[in-house]
Amino acid sequence: MFTITSPNTSSLAQIQDKIDNKTKPQGALGQLEAVAAQLALIQQSDTISVSQPHLLVFAGDHGVAQHGLSIAPSEVTTQMVMNFLSGGAAINCFCRTSDMTLKVIDAGTKLEADDHPQLLKQRLGNGTADFSQQAAMSRETAQQGLELGAGLVTEIHEQGCNLVGFGEMGIGNTSSAAAIMAALLKIPADECVGRGTGITDEQLERKQALITQALDLHQVSADDPLAILTCLGGFEIAQITGGMLKAAELKMTVLVDGFISTAAAMLATTMHPEANHYFIYCHCSEESGHQRMLQHLNAQPLLDLGLRLGEGTGAALALPMIRSACEFYNNMASFSEAGVTV
Amino acid sequence: MFTITSPNTSSLAQIQDKIDNKTKPQGALGQLEAVAAQLALIQQSDTISVSQPHLLVFAGDHGVAQHGLSIAPSEVTTQMVMNFLSGGAAINCFCRTSDMTLKVIDAGTKLEADDHPQLLKQRLGNGTADFSQQAAMSRETAQQGLELGAGLVTEIHEQGCNLVGFGEMGIGNTSSAAAIMAALLKIPADECVGRGTGITDEQLERKQALITQALDLHQVSADDPLAILTCLGGFEIAQITGGMLKAAELKMTVLVDGFISTAAAMLATTMHPEANHYFIYCHCSEESGHQRMLQHLNAQPLLDLGLRLGEGTGAALALPMIRSACEFYNNMASFSEAGVTV
Repeated sequence: MFTITSPNTSSLAQIQDKIDNKTKPQGALGQLEAVAAQLALIQQSDTISVSQPHLLVFAGDHGVAQHGLSIAPSEVTTQMVMNFLSGGAAINCFCRTSDMTLKVIDAGTKLEADDHPQLLKQRLGNGTADFSQQAAMSRETAQQGLELGAGLVTEIHEQGCNLVGFGEMGIGNTSSAAAIMAALLKIPADECVGRGTGITDEQLERKQALITQALDLHQVSADDPLAILTCLGGFEIAQITGGMLKAAELKMTVLVDGFISTAAAMLATTMHPEANHYFIYCHCSEESGHQRMLQHLNAQPLLDLGLRLGEGTGAALALPMIRSACEFYNNMASFSEAGVTV
Repeated sequence: MFTITSPNTSSLAQIQDKIDNKTKPQGALGQLEAVAAQLALIQQSDTISVSQPHLLVFAGDHGVAQHGLSIAPSEVTTQMVMNFLSGGAAINCFCRTSDMTLKVIDAGTKLEADDHPQLLKQRLGNGTADFSQQAAMSRETAQQGLELGAGLVTEIHEQGCNLVGFGEMGIGNTSSAAAIMAALLKIPADECVGRGTGITDEQLERKQALITQALDLHQVSADDPLAILTCLGGFEIAQITGGMLKAAELKMTVLVDGFISTAAAMLATTMHPEANHYFIYCHCSEESGHQRMLQHLNAQPLLDLGLRLGEGTGAALALPMIRSACEFYNNMASFSEAGVTV
């Protein structure tokens, strides 16, 4: 379904040389140098750019939320969709400051929001089934989710977008992400489960128990990411995974946000390891488990601001760093241009 | 010379309430919440703003550099000043992406740069004296440095600027900053000295030995920051310290950059502890010692990108985070405004 190739690395030495000849000590711009090199490889160009950046926020509900694993009920997913549409959420604020186009996608909330000109409805159902009892969705639905996410990315790419960030909203989706993580890394649930946006000790224990139960029930293989998505995933996670894979296929840069977004990135890179070359991990979430995910992916996140909100907020906040990396790569003087002694 | 008062904290509960009622779990925006609260206290307003932000980069040379403690000779300070003026340095790039006005100040380079319409000459001499042999400057010169930095900040404040970042360029100035740190914290030089922009083991040992020698020679008290500045400082560090203090007096927000800028902040807050309320520590430098400085100041830096360049680069890169904090504080919907269930 996706044909993803690694960037051509034949220009790597030339790219590193360009960076090292800028008027600064070698390596002095730290992670921004790595970002610049990554974009130069992705874009295969002597000048790199961020063009029409988009942030796609996918909303979906989770059957497992009926066990009260979250600080809020499932209705809040739909309420937050309305908040996104009226411009009042954190992700709206950060897309404004980062000059990023926000698109809101209903991937399958429990309560369907009213139609709205800014709302893309790509509903896979009224929330997933409770994965502690049965598969969250069918394999066909998971596949359809991948395709829907991919379709949207194709669309924005055709409009000139070369960088896309992924965010999510979904009451219960840290449970789904933790279950996906446990299945992919083959580690116990309690090493993956955190407090989401702030649950109690009792809720945390219940969350761990339910995920353990789900892992025992489904017995999915770590080598079958589509089965993991089917049994443990969410509608928003499916569409994000498909969107990320299509973006990699189209040689776009992908901004990965926090815990849930990274769970999707792990599914994507398990399906297609080459996709990881196109991914920038934007921040380290406060959610316990995220750091371990990032270690597993050998990813060094750009920001560590103690965020635990999702919505793509970390991706939007990181965009200025990407732009700064482009600017220094394109326009910073070399030692010879500036007449600075090496 | 400076009259600095802490912000009025009578509105603190109201500020926290406003932040906690935004449509997000409490604390979910991490350090951005702290930045918003800090600006709300500084600006004493229900809406907070970044207005005409400036980045002031002060250049100065250091007599101690004659011992070859750096990867480059003192001439490079002047060459980099020319690079700043022609827009080719990293700080130029990041001020462009962050929409920040850059001002370049010659605080006393060894080689005087030609006059240039964008270059402010506030020269205190042709570089400091070698502090391993004698005081870097006279007490009068240190005082004059504070005043010159303060004067420039007064000027930009009168033009409508409410936020100022400080950067520096000066071959040898990590040695000066490390010596200041050792004197202020009363710890041995080897706990303060790092590799600057990338020196060898041999240079590192020499740097430690010279700073230890300087500390033995001057015997300055940790309680006399002006004496520390006089004996161990730099012309750029003096002007930055004065600029930071004046900014605090004028209730502006101060962006503190890396190791050298933080040494100036430590001098400033030792002179006037209230000044610290106005300071935002922008990033954690790769320079060993910087982390310890930040711990001493009880500061949690916004970024940790592995930068070790100075020039104010970390401050310019952090500005988008400050703007994002303002945007969410001013414009993010509350639970009641958005109709989201608490």
